[in-house]
This record gives sequence, structure tokens and C-alpha cells, in this order.
Amino acid sequence: MFMHNKKLQYTVRVAEPNPGLAKLMLEQFGGPDGELAAAMRYFTQGLADEDPGRKDMLLDIATEELSHLEVIGSIVAMLNKGTKADIREGAMEEAELYMKINNGSADATQAILYGGGPSLTNSAGVPWSGAYVDSRGEPTVDLRSNIAAEARAKIVYERLINVTDDVGVQDALKFLMTREIAHQKSFEKALFAIEDNFPPGKLPGVEKYASTYVNTSQGEGDATGPWNSGDEWERIDDLTNTLPADGGSGLPTVELKGEQKSALAQLATRTKSNPDGNPTTGADLAAGPGAGRTKKVPEDIA
Amino acid sequence: MFMHNKKLQYTVRVAEPNPGLAKLMLEQFGGPDGELAAAMRYFTQGLADEDPGRKDMLLDIATEELSHLEVIGSIVAMLNKGTKADIREGAMEEAELYMKINNGSADATQAILYGGGPSLTNSAGVPWSGAYVDSRGEPTVDLRSNIAAEARAKIVYERLINVTDDVGVQDALKFLMTREIAHQKSFEKALFAIEDNFPPGKLPGVEKYASTYVNTSQGEGDATGPWNSGDEWERIDDLTNTLPADGGSGLPTVELKGEQKSALAQLATRTKSNPDGNPTTGADLAAGPGAGRTKKVPEDIA
Amino acid sequence: MFMHNKKLQYTVRVAEPNPGLAKLMLEQFGGPDGELAAAMRYFTQGLADEDPGRKDMLLDIATEELSHLEVIGSIVAMLNKGTKADIREGAMEEAELYMKINNGSADATQAILYGGGPSLTNSAGVPWSGAYVDSRGEPTVDLRSNIAAEARAKIVYERLINVTDDVGVQDALKFLMTREIAHQKSFEKALFAIEDNFPPGKLPGVEKYASTYVNTSQGEGDATGPWNSGDEWERIDDLTNTLPADGGSGLPTVELKGEQKSALAQLATRTKSNPDGNPTTGADLAAGPGAGRTKKVPEDIA
Amino acid sequence: MFMHNKKLQYTVRVAEPNPGLAKLMLEQFGGPDGELAAAMRYFTQGLADEDPGRKDMLLDIATEELSHLEVIGSIVAMLNKGTKADIREGAMEEAELYMKINNGSADATQAILYGGGPSLTNSAGVPWSGAYVDSRGEPTVDLRSNIAAEARAKIVYERLINVTDDVGVQDALKFLMTREIAHQKSFEKALFAIEDNFPPGKLPGVEKYASTYVNTSQGEGDATGPWNSGDEWERIDDLTNTLPADGGSGLPTVELKGEQKSALAQLATRTKSNPDGNPTTGADLAAGPGAGRTKKVPEDIA
Amino acid sequence: MFMHNKKLQYTVRVAEPNPGLAKLMLEQFGGPDGELAAAMRYFTQGLADEDPGRKDMLLDIATEELSHLEVIGSIVAMLNKGTKADIREGAMEEAELYMKINNGSADATQAILYGGGPSLTNSAGVPWSGAYVDSRGEPTVDLRSNIAAEARAKIVYERLINVTDDVGVQDALKFLMTREIAHQKSFEKALFAIEDNFPPGKLPGVEKYASTYVNTSQGEGDATGPWNSGDEWERIDDLTNTLPADGGSGLPTVELKGEQKSALAQLATRTKSNPDGNPTTGADLAAGPGAGRTKKVPEDIA
Amino acid sequence: MFMHNKKLQYTVRVAEPNPGLAKLMLEQFGGPDGELAAAMRYFTQGLADEDPGRKDMLLDIATEELSHLEVIGSIVAMLNKGTKADIREGAMEEAELYMKINNGSADATQAILYGGGPSLTNSAGVPWSGAYVDSRGEPTVDLRSNIAAEARAKIVYERLINVTDDVGVQDALKFLMTREIAHQKSFEKALFAIEDNFPPGKLPGVEKYASTYVNTSQGEGDATGPWNSGDEWERIDDLTNTLPADGGSGLPTVELKGEQKSALAQLATRTKSNPDGNPTTGADLAAGPGAGRTKKVPEDIA
Repeated sequence: MFMHNKKLQYTVRVAEPNPGLAKLMLEQFGGPDGELAAAMRYFTQGLADEDPGRKDMLLDIATEELSHLEVIGSIVAMLNKGTKADIREGAMEEAELYMKINNGSADATQAILYGGGPSLTNSAGVPWSGAYVDSRGEPTVDLRSNIAAEARAKIVYERLINVTDDVGVQDALKFLMTREIAHQKSFEKALFAIEDNFPPGKLPGVEKYASTYVNTSQGEGDATGPWNSGDEWERIDDLTNTLPADGGSGLPTVELKGEQKSALAQLATRTKSNPDGNPTTGADLAAGPGAGRTKKVPEDIA
Repeated sequence: MFMHNKKLQYTVRVAEPNPGLAKLMLEQFGGPDGELAAAMRYFTQGLADEDPGRKDMLLDIATEELSHLEVIGSIVAMLNKGTKADIREGAMEEAELYMKINNGSADATQAILYGGGPSLTNSAGVPWSGAYVDSRGEPTVDLRSNIAAEARAKIVYERLINVTDDVGVQDALKFLMTREIAHQKSFEKALFAIEDNFPPGKLPGVEKYASTYVNTSQGEGDATGPWNSGDEWERIDDLTNTLPADGGSGLPTVELKGEQKSALAQLATRTKSNPDGNPTTGADLAAGPGAGRTKKVPEDIA
Repeated sequence: MFMHNKKLQYTVRVAEPNPGLAKLMLEQFGGPDGELAAAMRYFTQGLADEDPGRKDMLLDIATEELSHLEVIGSIVAMLNKGTKADIREGAMEEAELYMKINNGSADATQAILYGGGPSLTNSAGVPWSGAYVDSRGEPTVDLRSNIAAEARAKIVYERLINVTDDVGVQDALKFLMTREIAHQKSFEKALFAIEDNFPPGKLPGVEKYASTYVNTSQGEGDATGPWNSGDEWERIDDLTNTLPADGGSGLPTVELKGEQKSALAQLATRTKSNPDGNPTTGADLAAGPGAGRTKKVPEDIA
Repeated sequence: MFMHNKKLQYTVRVAEPNPGLAKLMLEQFGGPDGELAAAMRYFTQGLADEDPGRKDMLLDIATEELSHLEVIGSIVAMLNKGTKADIREGAMEEAELYMKINNGSADATQAILYGGGPSLTNSAGVPWSGAYVDSRGEPTVDLRSNIAAEARAKIVYERLINVTDDVGVQDALKFLMTREIAHQKSFEKALFAIEDNFPPGKLPGVEKYASTYVNTSQGEGDATGPWNSGDEWERIDDLTNTLPADGGSGLPTVELKGEQKSALAQLATRTKSNPDGNPTTGADLAAGPGAGRTKKVPEDIA
Repeated sequence: MFMHNKKLQYTVRVAEPNPGLAKLMLEQFGGPDGELAAAMRYFTQGLADEDPGRKDMLLDIATEELSHLEVIGSIVAMLNKGTKADIREGAMEEAELYMKINNGSADATQAILYGGGPSLTNSAGVPWSGAYVDSRGEPTVDLRSNIAAEARAKIVYERLINVTDDVGVQDALKFLMTREIAHQKSFEKALFAIEDNFPPGKLPGVEKYASTYVNTSQGEGDATGPWNSGDEWERIDDLTNTLPADGGSGLPTVELKGEQKSALAQLATRTKSNPDGNPTTGADLAAGPGAGRTKKVPEDIA
Repeated sequence: MFMHNKKLQYTVRVAEPNPGLAKLMLEQFGGPDGELAAAMRYFTQGLADEDPGRKDMLLDIATEELSHLEVIGSIVAMLNKGTKADIREGAMEEAELYMKINNGSADATQAILYGGGPSLTNSAGVPWSGAYVDSRGEPTVDLRSNIAAEARAKIVYERLINVTDDVGVQDALKFLMTREIAHQKSFEKALFAIEDNFPPGKLPGVEKYASTYVNTSQGEGDATGPWNSGDEWERIDDLTNTLPADGGSGLPTVELKGEQKSALAQLATRTKSNPDGNPTTGADLAAGPGAGRTKKVPEDIA
């Protein structure tokens, strides 16, 4: 069960209202790498994990991320506090309020729809999606997703720090950014505390395809590196002559029977195209054959 | 520029139509860990990467993932080939076709809306989303996302292999699954070929918060592990007395001025709640005070 | 700051795994009226509310809803526990596992993509959306939204209770359903503790339009009730002759000037349609004028 | 069946084009509280309601909301009329047109994608979603949702009025806002015309949980009000010692049998974490144990 | 302004409840080619069209599509009427109701969430999206979109007819299908009533690229037809040697200046990959170099 | 299988960074009419088409569209190259960077979330959706959708050309725009190379409804044109007296039996509204009967 203490995990001191900055901060409130996504990622994993220690860690960090959601949400609320009063009380001339909202110092949707409260959207106004949570229920997979998610959250906080000179906001963002580093470290430890962590899952790969590098992008700029060269790799450069990888025909096949077979034949006949001739088309009606080469502009608007 | 060879990267041999299995396969065609998501993840990264070697790798693998999209799409097309003929040609009795679609052997939306062609949806019919692509433009972040994405794709292929006994489908899936392992290895090499890869980005963390583990979930089941114990970690168990982390008030503040200040005061007055008294509510009108304790069921339907 | 106790708010006792039932339960985990939507609705409101008492209530109930999310998520995890083992370990014959997943006793996406863990989707697999949170930042509006949301959640729990005979699941659902009733009552009290709660907001309506009922749907079945009859209402039945309500022309107008005016004239000329004549169309090419009256079926498939 | 009269329900007189204002107005055309959402909410309810009087009311109001959609859409069309001509006819210098679109006086997506026509999006460009329609098919629930939806629509119109000084636009918005008040009153009457309207639905709550208030958020700022105090409420402050509410273990349980039981044991073994030791991780490779405390910046860019 | 007559445009006679069929029908209620999408496509176009005749046609057809939405919605409501009563009244044993919902004869989300009312989703439960409306504000473009949309709607109705033997449902569907044919014909006439309809818009194409066919997919199966052969076409088969089309370098370039130039250099240095050497990676830690070739399965679960 | 040549299909020469223009260009990268949508539309059709010639064409054009995706993506990457360096390296004062991002010269989400890389979103930040792909699996339908999609893409490119004076960007856009014209022509030819292409599909329409035009929108402005007048059309003006089209009752009916019938009766009784009397409502509590006519503003804030 969750409980709540009215103190924030980190004190939020905002110098003055700034709805434009509030909009940017939403990225970590309701954006794909934000705190709700983090909390829900670990929470859904924790509910289904069979390992008691890892389950405990997942719930610890999920709960802390909810606390971070509260911190970033409080930053947004403070930055929007002026807009909230302005828009709700109609406290200034309409034209003046319109200018504030429409010239970039405030965000239209934040003001009009959300009334200055923090919204579960990213900075572009896109609603948070449950699809941001990429838990798959296999710990060696999910921990890698968590490591990546913490890395993404770290970099987004770094960019937010780069765009504000409000010291109180910076301090809180640095705290949040650092905690993502700490969480990444925890998830790294947890991943490597599982002996059999690569390849993830239970099935081994097919040996002949596991160390092949397929050089599909060719031309000036072709390069080598430890990802495609050295003892571990067999690189394929001649694609055409090694295709398909299994040595078969490279064509897809399936066997239909009975009525389906004849229905398919009927479908093929009904929708067959005539490869010969040159039918007149709708475009031809408009512009004659060769339409599109030259655009006829009506004289009266030329 | 992209080019296409009509041969598939791996020959697709499907034993017989099976629209129920086709639906499951969509997870890797139009699902979050599917081949389009993979191709677009690496392609968007490759377009903006400043390192020539890594850029080459990203385009190589992006192009191969497009080829995998073609393989899994061809599997779906073969498995759906019978439904395609049935629904388009109306080749059987309506009641019989209804039974096939509605008893689980085929999927309604696949048949009715997509006509048996492969759709860019996951197995539940949810359309593919650009939000599946989590490229953030920082290589040490994106490569971790790529490693995680390959791990997720690997496990989904493993599960698909677990649910089909069609040997041709199994073979193609094993090929695709193995390539995900190979790609994960390439991305691992590329990540560690960047010297300064942790923490990702440029800003260091705040030292005092970087190695703290906050034990937010307590009670029976509290556990230790390398993620929260040992020399690297300082663990906080007494949350209440260490809150907030910065030693401040734990409250959010912002300074408003002039008209905004008075507008806010007006707003607070206008929307203040009266903490005393016990107002009659809409629910009280319906059921009297204490409503909900007992549900009055009208006599005539009791 | 949030904290977590490992005990659930209500003990979850599931008789046996039932992935089909798990799927239905997702409606209250990741569905529009589910516990995450509830928690986030009150949490976002609480962060921005200026009234201390109401803010406290919103955070109390938000925190409890997170605890309910844990309860319903634990029900899902228990019901899916068998599928989780089956799909991850490949513990049975492929054909047998396929049958379980595809004949309705389990859900394909839950098994393949989420691996038996609870997903932030509704029962159809649609990901949770931040748009479910309809906080608008005006207490007399938001409290009404909360009352409605609790009513919706109550009825969805009632329906879930109607479809399971697992006594342990029923007990937990009855607890959750009852708490929605209690929360609705709290929100009713809070709404009526605001003196000026109707109409919501600050602007009064235009008196002449505030008590008019426009009878737009006419014909057999026209009815009266307290919503359109009696002293409070003025009903308009003769629409055509009272249109528009303001007595004007009923047409939309705007004044363009200078270059825009001439650009618009040009646009009108360029895209004008010729009302006379009968142009040959693409459809005419295919089927002759009157196309569509009779469908020509090629002889070879007739 | 629907019919249409070319006159608007309210005459739209726009002083001059203003694409920035048009963008704000979209909130009520294609936004969550906009007129399409309203129309579809009542229309879907009306189609399935068994009560003839309420069904008539729902179709009356749904039809009126469609007429409001036409009014607000016409406002958008008039405000965008200049942009429409500019962008379609390429009627000014590219750089000048770019400045108009990119400096906030027009909206990029409205101009480029929608060509100045009204789009079914909110003011941030998010497409309208069928999920905005929260009809649940239980009248005592749906009417509460309708009341809340009208309240939300009222407040959004109020905010739009606050940001425009175009008198013609203001007049039309005031008409629309007032109609929402009238509709809310109709839905209130319809709700209370159902005798048994609380709690909604058929099942009563569990008496012991129906009047409990759980004080989950504690600390300075804990408050009382009619929502948690007085004769109707029993308040729980000592959470830890009263947990879980049912007096059980507070743990989730399910009984697995046979092969599933052994598969689960296998899964637990395969994915178990080693709580002891301190494995070297990917992050350690990059930065050594304690990684993240200090960020190594390569000398050549320091 | 819209008005409503309580009679449907076509009488709906459903033989008996069939919630499985209801689910399929949703495709035309809340699906991408359904009646709401049609109505909104023409309605949004009509609001902004400058041609009076075409505007009239668009509003005529938009209004008729709303009437079709009512017909298909009424079909859904009738087919779901039994489920509606069952789920709301809890009128049968829980286990029996569960079986009905979970064995495919009813749809879980329709029953639990929507309570048997028609939902604005497609047959898979995906909510209707404003993005289905592809109006772009250029008549020669929009009319082509309308023609295509009518063609799609026609074929979906055809498939629905193919899966039901309920004569009353078939009759109504045939009416709706036929009206799509009639609407397609109207839009064809309207398109060709614009003299300058191809290429759409105002700018002509670049002549040298307008009649080139680029044969990007090569190998066995390369084919010719009127779309790539004949006098109108110049076909390019030798891609490599004709690349890029403009005869330039085929590389993307941009000129950066001053601080941005040095910042970019810094970024390149900071994130450069070392192409030499073979760094140890996270995957190597788990499985040794060459990881993935063989999967180590722990002995105790082998 | 796909292959890649490092040269672009058209050389991209961008004069200088311009993140505001980059944002507009996203419309054709990740927008509904953009190149990914085009590529996927044709690719999904090609995988399932039974006609070898048309299948070849679909894969040719799909592959070319992927190459266009690379061209437009490269334009975005070049235009964003400065922002990418600025935001990632923190290369300028925070306040200065904030001003650049928030005053419209750059886009917040592009900078903060995507770090200056091209994102699969439209210009408003809405993620690309699989629902943009409207393939239905019937060639005469899909080809019409393709024609319409090419027309939409053409016009969006035209508008983009209208807003940039960067000659290198203009050149590339003109190339891309022209290729859409060429593709439209190919699809027109392919459509008319199918003999039986109208009405699409197999079922003929019902003759009496196929040439009827229903004049649902009446009043001043009613017009005629080839879409509703002439020998091919029978126009219905008197809607009320010809309703419903089938001559029936115009009411929806279904026959329920046994327990469902009594459950429905119970539901109707339980939720029936009392048409008489005038119940006191929640709104009445707040404002007295007639609430809303006059808004009571508390004296202390008047």
C-alpha cells in the first residue's frame, strides 16, 4: 500500500512564474521518458517478478519515481501559477492575455484546456501513453529496458538544465538527474546478478546466424569497427549472391486447399491487371496523356 | 538510397493458412518491438549521427530490419491467404464465414478491415506508433535503447516460436530471433567503443545523491542485493526523518507579483471550500445522508 | 513524498489462474475508468489546488487509488501466473500452448507481448492515455468530473463482479467498488462546500439562452420531462422560423483585406466547379455513365 | 435521420482573420471537451437508452451539439480564411509567409497540413479521440458524466472568451457557453428524475468500507472538512496498524497445479538474482565502481 | 443547423441479439472507414470550401452520413440488447455470463466497459481518431480522398454482408453500401467539374522527373505494365550509376557558423567511437566473447 | 530484401540551420501524408497482392518512398544541426538557449526530447500512426487510396515550397513533389488496367438506391451540379415524407427471448425516469431553481 508525506523529496524553489519553461518541464512529467513512465515501468514489473530481492528493488524505485513525479509536477505548478490566476480570473485585458498566450511566453493548450495545472502530456501536448511502458516480463530483458530508460531520462534532464537559469529549478533538476544515474547503477547490478543474462530468455540462437554482420548499406562511407570486424564477426558484403541466407528460393509459399484454392483463383482473375495497352485514366481526363509534365494554369489567374 | 531484391532474406515456407497464428505474428510486424520499430529506431539515429563508423552501422542494421519486416510480413500474408480469399470472394456461406471469424480461428479486424493483408498493428489491433521509436540523439543513450530493444525483440520471437509447430514458420522465426542477438552484440560493441559512456551525456551527477539507495518500500520482504548494499551504496531507511533530501522545507514555492498576486488571491477566495458544516449534496438528495451504506432496490424489481 | 508498505490494502486471494478473467480485470488497471486514471486525476488536481483542505483530500484519495492500482494489478498478476510460466518456459507442446492462447482462455497480446505481467491497457489492449485525465483546474468543474469518474468506476467494478465466481476475486472487487462509492461521497461534499459552485467558473450565462430547450429531434416519440418542461424552461419547437437564435443572417462572415482578399479570389477562381455540363469521370471510364447501377462481373468468374 | 438548414444556430461575425486565435478555438471543435465529443457522448447514449423520455432528450441535445460544432467550426474557418488563401495561392514571398507561420501568428500544422480548414484536433494538434466519449450505458452514471462534461465545456468557453476582444467572436462564444449551462441543468433534472440514482448501478456497497476515509497523505497540512469528518465518516489515521482492511495477510496468492507449478519453479530458478557478491556491470566497465559520482570529461573538450 | 427526425433513414430489423456480430459492425460505426469518419471528412471540407455548389454537396452528404451513423449504430444497439440486459442486471450465473463474454459470442470490452452501447471504436476496440479525417483544404485533393474513402467504405460493407445471414441486417447493410457507391459517383462528378484538377494544386512538377519510373525492386518477377512502360514513361533500371537524380554528390550538407560549428566539433569529439580494438561489453561479461553462439542453460533447469 | 546505397536519391544542400523550418518539414517525414506513410501503404499492399505486375509496381514505389524518407529526413537533420550541437553541448548561456527554443525559432520538443534528430512525428509533434496506412486488400480500393494519398502528398510539398526561400531545400522539395505526381500517374494506370474497377469489389449495389441524391442540407444556398442533377440522378428534396427509404416504420427492432427479455424489462424499470414533477437537483442546491440565469459572484471578490 502506498502512503504519502506532504513534504516533497526535494524542496522546489521557483524564482518566478514562467509558463514557457513549464511547458518544457512537462517532458519529464507526462513525456515518454518522464517520471510516470518510470514509475509504471518498475511497478508493473515488480507486481509480476518471482525473485523477492528484485521485486523489492522494483517497488522501491517505482515508489521513488512517484515521488519524483510529485517534484517535477510541483515545479510545473509553480511555473504556471501566474497563468493559472490570469486565465481563470480573467484578470487582464483580453488582448493582453491573448498576446501572452500566443507569443510563446505561455502555451495555449496549457492555459485554455488545463487551466495552468500540470497535464499528463509531453511538451508538445501529446498525451502520455501506456505504450511508453515497455515491460515484457522477462527480467534480463526488462532490466535492459530499465537501464536504457534511465539513460534517456538522464539526458532529458540534462537538456532541461541547459535551458534554465532559475537556480532553484536547476537544483531540483540536478537532484532528479542524479537519481536517474543512481537507479541506472542499481539496474545494472541487478542485471548482472542474474547469471544467465545473455542472450536474454531461454532459447539459444542459431549458431550460423549469430555472428554474421550483413553489410546492407554500401558505397562511400563504408566503415569498420568492433561491431562488424574482428574474430567474432563474419561479414557479408556480397548480398546478391548470398541471398537468401537459408539457400532456398527466397520466395514465400503456402499451400491452400479445396475451396480456398478456387476462391483465391477467382480473386486473382477478378482483380488481374492488363499489362498491355494504355488505358485512359482519371488523370488523363484532366490533363491528357503525359499529364503532369506541364501544369496548365487557367489564364484568368496566370 | 534504398533498393530492393525480390528475394527475401530468408525463405518463408508456411505449411497451411492459419489466420489465428497470423494475428500473433503481427506483434513483430506492427507491434512495439517489431521490425518497423527497429528499422525506424536505427534509421532516425543514423541520419543525425556525427560519427561515420556508427552512422554506417546504424544504416546497415536499419536496412536489414526493413528486410526482416518483409520476412515477417510475408509470413503474415501466407498465413492469411485463405481468409483473404474467403472474405473477398464471399466464397462460403455467411454463417460459416461468421463462425470462422468469430470463434477465434481468424481475427475480425484482420478479415473485415484489412482484408487479410498484413496490418501495421500489434496482435491486439493497436496501430503502430511513432512513439515506439525512442531515439534521443545522444549515442550513449540511444545505443542503450537499442540494446534493450533487441533484447525485447528477441524474447517476443522466442514466445512466438513457443506457440507454433509449423516447421517452416519456426525456421524463419529462429533466423529472425538470432539476428536480434547479433544486432544486440553490435550495439554493445558500439556502446563500449565510446570511451565516455557513463553516465550518458555531459553533465556529472551531484555526488551526494549519486550513490544513495532510498528504501521507499518497507515491511516484510525488504531485501538486500548488490543494487542497494555494499561499499558503493548508502541506504536510507528512515525516510520521514531525512525528508527532504536537501534539508529544506519540502514545500514548493514561487513568488508572484502585482496583478498576478491579487488575481491568485481572488481565485483562492472564489473557490475556497468551507471546512465546517455538512452541506447537502447531490448524493444526499438521492439517498439521504450516509448514502451508499445500504442500496435501496425498488420493490418491483427486488 | 510517497512511501510503500509491502502489504496490500486488501488481501488478494485468487482460487486458480484464469488468463481470460485477467484480461477483463485490466479494464480497471489500465482502462479509462481504472485506478491509474483515478490516481492521476486527483494527483494532478491536488498539485495545483489553492485550497489547503481540498488539496489534502485530493492527495489522500490519489494515494489510496495508487494502492488500489496495486490491488487490481496483483489480481491480474495472480490470474496470469500460469500463462506467465507456460509462455516463458515453453513448458508444453507448441500446439497445445497455441490452443490455449487462441481459443479465448488466454489473451494473445497479454501472453506474447507482456509475458503475463499486468499491462497498462484496457481489456481490448488499448494503451492507457493521459487524455483519460480530464482535470481542468477549476475546482467546481474538476469535482464534478471526479464524481462522474467514481460513478463510472463503480459500475465497471459491478460488471466485473457479475462475471466471476471466484470468491476471493469477488471480495477484493467488492472492496474496491465500495471505496469508489465512499470517494464519490467525499467529492460531493467537497463540491457543495464551495458556495459558488453553479454555474462553474466566473462568467454568468446570457440570460435569454440559459433556460431555453431546443427540441431538435422531432417526430413520433417526442417527450416531456423535468429537463425540458415546467416553469424553468422555455421550449423551442419551431426551429426553422426561430433560426438563428440571435436574429441575424445565420451566415458566417469575416472581412479580408488587400492581398489576402485577392489571393482568396484567385483561390476561388482556380478551384471553382462548373455546375453545368456532365463531365466524364474516372468512374464513368470504368463502367459508363450510370455506373454502379449494375455490376459487371467478368464472365470467367460469374 | 438528420437534416440540415444552411443557417447557423448563431450568426458568426468575425472582425478579421486571426489564425492564432483560430488555433485556440480548435479546443472546442476537436478537443476533449469540444462539441464533437459532446454530440457523440449523447448520441451513443441515446441509441441504447430504454427510457423514451431520456432518449428523446439525449437526441435533442446531441443534435444541438452538432449545430454547435458547426458554429465553432465556422468561427475557425473565418479566422483562418486569410491563411488559407496565403498558403494555397503562394500569394506572398516565401520568407514572409514563413515568418507569419513560424512566429506564432499562425499555426504551422494548421497551415501546412490542413490548409486553413478546421481540423479535428485540439489546440495542440492532438487528433480527436473516440476515448473522449465516456458513455458506459448506465443512465445514473452517464448523466453524471454528462453533467461533468458540460461543466468542463463551460469553463473552456469562459477561458476562450477571456482571450479575445473580437466582439463577434465573443458573442458567439457566450451563446455556446450559455447553452452548456442549460444542458447541464437538463442533465441534472434527468438524473434526479431517476429515483434510485445513488450509488449508481444495482449492487450495494460493503457497509463497513462505504463510510471510511483513509488518511493516506499525512504531515503538516492535514486537514478536515465535510469530506472526511462528521457523523458520516470514520477516519483511519493509523495506516500501518490497520493494514490490510480485511485483516488478512495483505499478500496476493494463487494456487498453481501440476505442470504450471513446475514451470513456474523453473522460471524462478532461471531468473533468480544472486543477492550476494558485487558483479561487474556495463556501467562499471565504463567508469569503474562508483561510476557516476564523478564524470570524466575527455581532456580535449574540457 | 442540424435537425433530427426520429425515423431512421432505413428501417433496422434485427432477427435476434448477436453481440459477436455487433462487434464486427463497429467497424463502420467507429472504424477508420466508418460513418463518423465520412461525415466529419465532408463536414470539415464543407465549412471551408469557397465554391457554393460544392459546399452544398459536401454538407448534403455529410448530413446523410450522420444519418447512416445512426442506422449502423442502431444495428449495433439491437445486436447488443441482450448483452446489455445480462451484464447490467447480473441476470444469470457469474460463470455462465463469463462464458458468454469470454468464448467469443460477446466482446469483453463492449460488455464490461461500454455496457452494450455502441462505442466509437473499430472492431478491435481502437478508439476513433480525428486523424482518420484526411481533409487538406484543396478541393482537387480532398475530392480524390473522398472517392477513395467511399471505395473503402463500400468494400468494408461488402465484407460485413458476407458474414451475416440475418436478412434484416443484410438489407440495411446493402442500403448503406449502395449509398457509398452513389456518393463516390457524386464526388467523381465534382472532381471533374473542376477544370484544372491534375496535378492537384498550383505548382507544376519539374518536367524531367514527372515521367520517370524508377525500377527500385529488381530480380525475378520484374514486370512491365502501363504504369511503367510505353511512350509516357522513361524507366530507370541502372540505379547505381544514375544516382543521385540531380547529378550532385548525393550527400546532405549544411553550413554551420561560429559557436555552433565549434559546439558541433565538441559533440563529435565527445561521442566519437573508437573503430579499433575490441572493447569488453556488458554482453561479454555475461557470456564471454562470442556470446550468443551457444546459450548456457543452468544445469538445474536443463 | 532491401539494400542501401549511401548516396541520397537527390542531393540535399541546405544553406544554413533553421530549426523552425525543420519542424515544418517533419510533416513529410512523420506526418500522415509523409514518406513513411507512403512507403508502408504500398509495401503492405505489395506483400499481399496476387497480381505479379502490380505487386512489382507496389514494391518499386514503396522502395522509392523509403528513399524519399531518407531525403526529407536528411533535410530535417541538416536544418537541426545547429540546435543539436547547442542543446547537447550546453554551448551557450541557459537564458539564451531558452530564448531560442521558446520564441519559435526552434521547437521545444524537437530540442529537448529528440535532441535535434528527425522524429517520427508531424509538425505538431503527434507521433506517426499505423492508422495512416489505409490498405484494405482490394486493389480497386487500394489504388484509389494511393491516388488520393499521392495527391495529398503533392499539395503538402507545394505548401512547404511556399514557405522556404532556401534554394537547396526548394530544389529537393520540388523533386519530391514531382515524384508524387509521377506515382499518382502510375497508380491511375494500374487502376484502369483492371477491367472491373467500379464499383470496387464484387457485390453490385441495390439499383434503386444507387443513383439517388438526398438533399439533406436545405435553405438559401441550395445548388445543383453534375453531382446531383441530370439524367443520372434522382434527387430527393422532400425528406420527411419519403422517410425511411425502405418504406418501413423507420424504427429499430430486435426480438429478445426468455431471460434476456425479463432482464431488459427489469433494467427499464430500474432506470426509468419520472417525467412528471420537478426534482431538486445538485445544481438547484447550489443556485436555486432557475440556476444559471444569474451568476452570484461572492461580494468579497466582486
